[in-house]
Amino acid sequence: MEGLDDKLILNVGGMRHETYISTVRAFPGTRLYKLTEPPPPGSPAAQGPPVREFFFDRNPELFSYVLGYYRTRQLHCPNDVCRDVLEEELAYWGLAEAPLAPCCWLKLSGRETRTQDFLSWEACENANLDERLLLNPMEGQGLRNAWKPWLWVLLDQPQSSLGAKCLSLISTLFAVCALVIFFQETEVQLDYFSANFTPMGHGVGVGGSQQQQQQQNNGLVYRRAPHLLYLELLCSLWFGTELFARAISCPDKVRFLCSPLNLADIFCLFPVLVELVVGDKAERQPRLSLTLGAIRSLYVLKLVRLLGFLEKSLALRVLVHTLHSSWKEVCAFLLIWVAEILFFGSLFLYGELLGMSAPGQSELHFGDIFTCLWWTVITLTTVGYGDVYPLSAMGQLTAAVTATVGMCTGVLLVPVLLVRFQRYYAVALARQKLRPSGLL
Amino acid sequence: MEGLDDKLILNVGGMRHETYISTVRAFPGTRLYKLTEPPPPGSPAAQGPPVREFFFDRNPELFSYVLGYYRTRQLHCPNDVCRDVLEEELAYWGLAEAPLAPCCWLKLSGRETRTQDFLSWEACENANLDERLLLNPMEGQGLRNAWKPWLWVLLDQPQSSLGAKCLSLISTLFAVCALVIFFQETEVQLDYFSANFTPMGHGVGVGGSQQQQQQQNNGLVYRRAPHLLYLELLCSLWFGTELFARAISCPDKVRFLCSPLNLADIFCLFPVLVELVVGDKAERQPRLSLTLGAIRSLYVLKLVRLLGFLEKSLALRVLVHTLHSSWKEVCAFLLIWVAEILFFGSLFLYGELLGMSAPGQSELHFGDIFTCLWWTVITLTTVGYGDVYPLSAMGQLTAAVTATVGMCTGVLLVPVLLVRFQRYYAVALARQKLRPSGLL
Amino acid sequence: MEGLDDKLILNVGGMRHETYISTVRAFPGTRLYKLTEPPPPGSPAAQGPPVREFFFDRNPELFSYVLGYYRTRQLHCPNDVCRDVLEEELAYWGLAEAPLAPCCWLKLSGRETRTQDFLSWEACENANLDERLLLNPMEGQGLRNAWKPWLWVLLDQPQSSLGAKCLSLISTLFAVCALVIFFQETEVQLDYFSANFTPMGHGVGVGGSQQQQQQQNNGLVYRRAPHLLYLELLCSLWFGTELFARAISCPDKVRFLCSPLNLADIFCLFPVLVELVVGDKAERQPRLSLTLGAIRSLYVLKLVRLLGFLEKSLALRVLVHTLHSSWKEVCAFLLIWVAEILFFGSLFLYGELLGMSAPGQSELHFGDIFTCLWWTVITLTTVGYGDVYPLSAMGQLTAAVTATVGMCTGVLLVPVLLVRFQRYYAVALARQKLRPSGLL
Amino acid sequence: MEGLDDKLILNVGGMRHETYISTVRAFPGTRLYKLTEPPPPGSPAAQGPPVREFFFDRNPELFSYVLGYYRTRQLHCPNDVCRDVLEEELAYWGLAEAPLAPCCWLKLSGRETRTQDFLSWEACENANLDERLLLNPMEGQGLRNAWKPWLWVLLDQPQSSLGAKCLSLISTLFAVCALVIFFQETEVQLDYFSANFTPMGHGVGVGGSQQQQQQQNNGLVYRRAPHLLYLELLCSLWFGTELFARAISCPDKVRFLCSPLNLADIFCLFPVLVELVVGDKAERQPRLSLTLGAIRSLYVLKLVRLLGFLEKSLALRVLVHTLHSSWKEVCAFLLIWVAEILFFGSLFLYGELLGMSAPGQSELHFGDIFTCLWWTVITLTTVGYGDVYPLSAMGQLTAAVTATVGMCTGVLLVPVLLVRFQRYYAVALARQKLRPSGLL
Repeated sequence: MEGLDDKLILNVGGMRHETYISTVRAFPGTRLYKLTEPPPPGSPAAQGPPVREFFFDRNPELFSYVLGYYRTRQLHCPNDVCRDVLEEELAYWGLAEAPLAPCCWLKLSGRETRTQDFLSWEACENANLDERLLLNPMEGQGLRNAWKPWLWVLLDQPQSSLGAKCLSLISTLFAVCALVIFFQETEVQLDYFSANFTPMGHGVGVGGSQQQQQQQNNGLVYRRAPHLLYLELLCSLWFGTELFARAISCPDKVRFLCSPLNLADIFCLFPVLVELVVGDKAERQPRLSLTLGAIRSLYVLKLVRLLGFLEKSLALRVLVHTLHSSWKEVCAFLLIWVAEILFFGSLFLYGELLGMSAPGQSELHFGDIFTCLWWTVITLTTVGYGDVYPLSAMGQLTAAVTATVGMCTGVLLVPVLLVRFQRYYAVALARQKLRPSGLL
Repeated sequence: MEGLDDKLILNVGGMRHETYISTVRAFPGTRLYKLTEPPPPGSPAAQGPPVREFFFDRNPELFSYVLGYYRTRQLHCPNDVCRDVLEEELAYWGLAEAPLAPCCWLKLSGRETRTQDFLSWEACENANLDERLLLNPMEGQGLRNAWKPWLWVLLDQPQSSLGAKCLSLISTLFAVCALVIFFQETEVQLDYFSANFTPMGHGVGVGGSQQQQQQQNNGLVYRRAPHLLYLELLCSLWFGTELFARAISCPDKVRFLCSPLNLADIFCLFPVLVELVVGDKAERQPRLSLTLGAIRSLYVLKLVRLLGFLEKSLALRVLVHTLHSSWKEVCAFLLIWVAEILFFGSLFLYGELLGMSAPGQSELHFGDIFTCLWWTVITLTTVGYGDVYPLSAMGQLTAAVTATVGMCTGVLLVPVLLVRFQRYYAVALARQKLRPSGLL
Repeated sequence: MEGLDDKLILNVGGMRHETYISTVRAFPGTRLYKLTEPPPPGSPAAQGPPVREFFFDRNPELFSYVLGYYRTRQLHCPNDVCRDVLEEELAYWGLAEAPLAPCCWLKLSGRETRTQDFLSWEACENANLDERLLLNPMEGQGLRNAWKPWLWVLLDQPQSSLGAKCLSLISTLFAVCALVIFFQETEVQLDYFSANFTPMGHGVGVGGSQQQQQQQNNGLVYRRAPHLLYLELLCSLWFGTELFARAISCPDKVRFLCSPLNLADIFCLFPVLVELVVGDKAERQPRLSLTLGAIRSLYVLKLVRLLGFLEKSLALRVLVHTLHSSWKEVCAFLLIWVAEILFFGSLFLYGELLGMSAPGQSELHFGDIFTCLWWTVITLTTVGYGDVYPLSAMGQLTAAVTATVGMCTGVLLVPVLLVRFQRYYAVALARQKLRPSGLL
Repeated sequence: MEGLDDKLILNVGGMRHETYISTVRAFPGTRLYKLTEPPPPGSPAAQGPPVREFFFDRNPELFSYVLGYYRTRQLHCPNDVCRDVLEEELAYWGLAEAPLAPCCWLKLSGRETRTQDFLSWEACENANLDERLLLNPMEGQGLRNAWKPWLWVLLDQPQSSLGAKCLSLISTLFAVCALVIFFQETEVQLDYFSANFTPMGHGVGVGGSQQQQQQQNNGLVYRRAPHLLYLELLCSLWFGTELFARAISCPDKVRFLCSPLNLADIFCLFPVLVELVVGDKAERQPRLSLTLGAIRSLYVLKLVRLLGFLEKSLALRVLVHTLHSSWKEVCAFLLIWVAEILFFGSLFLYGELLGMSAPGQSELHFGDIFTCLWWTVITLTTVGYGDVYPLSAMGQLTAAVTATVGMCTGVLLVPVLLVRFQRYYAVALARQKLRPSGLL
């Protein structure tokens, strides 16, 4: 055991650490090592007894880990220490190159990696907040712009005031009305279509010319009740006015145009306009009329605005943000999904052909490769209508593999999504709590 | 290096922190800064040597972070410190405005955000407990009310005593009996219905009038065996008595009425009563008789009470509480679900119509939009009966997208539910452990 | 500010805490409060200056939280402190009744609640270990028992030695052989059955009596090739010998009998035995012969023993343990599952009947309620064969609800299972690491 | 209370712990106990007052847990301490055998068990990195090898340079071209097959010989347009050249050959070569021609290389690593999956046979056990085409159990996969953050 004289007292921020000089001499060139070097002969410190106590104005707790590194030659660190803090301390003590012990690698990162999530979520929420609370209404201070924020809040936030609630309710009623008209219209179109087109292929022989005749007549007859058209025009007028008002009062036009719901609103206006312009000709061109109908199905998306009545739940906002921020994974999954469909579709085709080439089999269920791809989608998603299914043993083997892969693909999505969701949710909860306090 | 004279000793709760005066002068106006200000000339402290040691009766560990803020100008905090504690300390030292370093934002919130979960779960469990253990039996102290708690415990808690177990067993037997009667009855109704209604559409021609005749006869013949009616009446009497007893002995009538199981019990009583009142006329009105049958299927819910025999598992109680407390997310998902059905249903309709308008195709699988919506539900849930499926390429494309979206919707539900469940479960486990000790 | 005289020095385990007497007097009756009481006049301590420093041989870190309680009247605790330790300290300082601040409730429980999991998993693994390594071979020390552990290890642990590997391989070959025989046999039975039974219902008229004749003949003809029977007898002899050897050498007979795989082995022996005893009569009683065949399908379970070749993975063992230990939840889910089937089956029946009672509909898809229940299972699991599906709007509505509920039931299973699995897995990993070190 | 004389001062690394001698005498033989032994009479220490203060150059914080062990006879440890550190300290103080209190078992393991994950992920990433950045290009320093790394980077990393991007784009175009040719060819093959093979079984009687004739003719006619063959040859030449270049420039040939994508590339070359060699004979041997087609479906896998355009997301790399490293669990699940199929297939066969042996039933849906196994796969994966489904009550019961088990099997996969994914993802995130700093 070394004598007491060999001890060194290191007063770091008031906490007195004591150690042997030999311990400190473990790593030459560091700040602590230099303390033990004899003073140059001419200096005043060379006279008198050697100094044994040194004061450093540093964090006393991290220093105990630094001293531990001298004692055991292994650098550990306290749990969940901030990396910046640790690096600064190590640099001060001249140990910037010291390797951290493997058991502590993960101690550093715990919260560290989440800061990025925090900032990403913060940005997302602030953007929403700005648009919502119009924190930048001061841009155009003129009289002309005074009503803009007021209008925007009125139109975009159903919960902000009684007027906003009423407006939102009226919009919803118009949307329901448009939907009812749309459903009515599908009935008419379906009747017209059934009468004119489908039997054409299965002509019953004798009545062929009569039918042909009737088709012409029907072709002229197809027209929805005019009052429905006018009612839909009324709805469209309301929707157009509302959309216009929201567009000019919106503080951020780019965000406004990129929102899928707003795009759907814009497209919704076309069908009625086109129908008015084209007039009677639309009925004679069933393909145009059907396309207009397909666009009309966007009316349904207006119902999604009803979500605004519920105060938007945190979990859902986080879910949307998760999907947004993991677009790369979503793209990759879509690519893999398409590759799976093409691959198993081709395998299925040849599996069936190889299996069916034995004599005495029944007819194939498909006539081209697109039906095979259709079958693959329906099998991978485990829907399994049963309109196409394998008949030979080899085709069944392919189908078994396809179904198993499909089941697993769904399962593989869960962890990727879940892990990101959990992190954003933790961050969102923290932010929700910390915001009101002055700490953030 | 500054001289020793420039050092300051801060004895905080017994731990002596030492630092330079220059360090402390980093933030003017704070409590520490004021220590370094020279005393007013006239005061007694101005004489004699300047005081270099100060005592503060505060938490010594958090003070090291406060001092670190003076040294590095970054405010860190220990892991999982309670926010209240940190804010109080910062306020004391005059640093209430100090911004926390980003790497520590999440350190604060770890447990903090869970306290709310804790209280929510606590409230839920206490409500159950009160109802269960009748912690408020003192309300009406009279003789008349002495039996109420006793009766309630007897009826509501199958595991409390031998009598309660027997009663519960008898109730279960009656429920099984009622179910058997109910199943017997469906057979009779199904026979009657098959004989009378379904062939009407497909009349076989010659035997039409005879059948008509027979139908009249059957109409009169339909009557279930009277002993079954009486047996069911007996069951209903038991159920009614039990329900009445539970209703009057229940300490919290509102909770009692809001429980879906109790509501089902009330509705269960109607069918037999109505049948007794209406008598023979019920058989002549098949619609009424079928409606009564549909209500009878609530008998099945009585079996759910069997769960009471198992001591309710913690995981299941937490699951129910999770669903309760995330009703907002459940509503939003239902709304999205409905919007998906309407949207993809319309798309499918027009996809098929557009695809089928080419000549030479077979007949459509649907005749109105409601069949399309039905198809959408069955595809989104990946059930896929195969009664309706797309025949054209465009319809198949729509169906492929619908099936993929349906598969993903199920997956998206998992994280939202899981994250909340995990938090409540952790809290519930903690409570279960802490309750017996005196700490809570 | 109080004078220095009012300070108290509390030397707890070497760490000197200083505080004011007034702080300590916050909670009368506690150990610290008593220090501040003036000594009884006659005692020697009453003379001389009052003692200002006290020594306690306790944990110095927890004491700082105790002192914090005196200062702020809120009891906090360090993160993840062991509850026993905290309670002991509080009891020593006379603060057993002190309520913990809500923000710290969850700090205590973090690891605490897992100890139980640890012990449960430890018990499960030790039981396996005992059986495996025969830690208790000393029970019957006689010469007669010396071979028991050796035999058990040989038979039960395919990886223990070369002999064990060979034995296991031979068993697997016999199992495959038995499976092949079994599959051969199904062909014979299927042919026999198709020839005799199925056409009976659809008698083709003229050839009725001939067929009847042929059936008699077939009835006599049905007999599998004798060499297959003898080969299967050979397999069964091997299986029986192996099972017997394992049974007598097993150290724990009860566990042996409770294992489902061993039970399956026992049942596997019956079919051949019964067939030998009954002899030719079996072929004349198709029902008996089919039942024997159904039992033979247990041969498949012998393949599961192949899992022994893989060194059992930790994750799978934890999964099995999770399912074992959450039998209560599994039971509850089964009960809910059955209730769902009964409830939606009844609803579907009446939905269809109500919807179909309008004239001009096609025929129902079901003839009794059991077909409805069958439909419900197939819809809830989202299989959806399409043999039964709703035809009326009301039935389709019921089906839509059923399919949605079925999709959600699967999702609800995930969190319950996952949370338990995660905890056991963490514990199992910890145990795997800690076992080799002497700490456990 | 013991006198002050009985106190011992233990100065451990500068922190002065004080305790009673009696406390330290709790565990004889340990280093602390020896301090309290009286010195041997003749030694110099025996004269003079007994030493009361000892200095140890060890970690002061862990020592407080060691002292706590003497005080309370329970060994606790701080949260997330590194096991090596704790063991070293305990060994120093002579307490290597001390059992850790159960509540602290899990404190040790928290990060410890993850180090292994860290190293496994590190190895995986470094292997990729080496291959990518060619950290070992110095092996063969000759002029001949200078272009190797350059070529490898050019071919394997689409994002590295503009040339690499162009090359990758050209490859993708060729792949799309090959796919289009492949799809064209399926049309021809399908037509040929439909014309020649399927009707053979359902011969229409009279036209039999004509058809036979026509088949011969068709057999000669089947030949795809020559320009398609030459175009495919061109594609194959490109693919072959690229594959060859990548093979010779690849730094690690074994890894190159083990990659499934590269194997698929190699197999892709065969069909065209074989077709060129065999020439017209291929068309006369439909089986060969179909097998070549099946191999051609590997062209699809070339599309997966498009993933390289996206910078590979961390989550996906972790997912692949998770699947790689849990091959044992995947194997076990496959084995269980096969056993489930065989078991439920056999049960279903006998269930149906037993249920159908009652007279008056319709025909079976299957003719051999392989159809039963096929049905089992389709039911377990909840696809449910509806080509085979049970008709009898017993078969339906089997099917209900099968469907429920299938639904649960998918759910059981989630936790096993998720837990591993979460750990690897945490580790991967940590590594991503720590790499740039010098700490790792």
